[in-house]
Amino acid sequence: MKYLGKHYLLELYDCPAELLSDPNFIDKKMNEAAREMEASIVESNFHHFNPLGVSGVIIIKESHLTIHTWPEYGYAAIDIFTCGKIYMERGIDFLIEALNAKSSEVKKMGRGAAHKFTQTMVPRKS
Amino acid sequence: MKYLGKHYLLELYDCPAELLSDPNFIDKKMNEAAREMEASIVESNFHHFNPLGVSGVIIIKESHLTIHTWPEYGYAAIDIFTCGKIYMERGIDFLIEALNAKSSEVKKMGRGAAHKFTQTMVPRKS
Repeated sequence: MKYLGKHYLLELYDCPAELLSDPNFIDKKMNEAAREMEASIVESNFHHFNPLGVSGVIIIKESHLTIHTWPEYGYAAIDIFTCGKIYMERGIDFLIEALNAKSSEVKKMGRGAAHKFTQTMVPRKS
Repeated sequence: MKYLGKHYLLELYDCPAELLSDPNFIDKKMNEAAREMEASIVESNFHHFNPLGVSGVIIIKESHLTIHTWPEYGYAAIDIFTCGKIYMERGIDFLIEALNAKSSEVKKMGRGAAHKFTQTMVPRKS
């Protein structure tokens, strides 16, 4: 089946709590991941929740990256959604290493089934 | 299996192009959906891509809502990710109706498998 977008749901387990609770570190590494993927960054916003956890979103021209961290469990949930040609695996590998996850899982989902569209899918010109 | 968060991936098909290409309308309806769910809105950002499509993110205290629209195909991809007690189904029903989708699909994913955490899961105090 043909899909418009790819959505990768990345589960990072057993990461050091001090990394997951540092909003500047998470912001920096997520932006570096976007650049590794050669994504076009539109806007980036990160929030530190007291006493724990960071949430952040990067809107890219090709869709988005998000992260939510739970330092108390060593867990981070990352999403990478893209409708363009970017190097998603590079970003995923980069983040697993940067956040020092001892285990991880990636679920790959197709988004937007082309046969359900109101007209035939033609890629947008960039 | 016990999970920390719920992630709903919502596919809206056959929506009117004029709704999907209006950034103010999409912004308003996504924020209304967050309020319908009784989520705590932290920050909201929407972008209009020329000539087509809207991308938007609402960071909520409980995680996030995102949307990307392709007016040319009548398609919108919406994600609702929550780790708290909010009324997700209300928001989903609201958005299907607001964006006038003639067909839709919802995929429900668990995020953060509790047995993989570095310590036993105890809900955060709000």
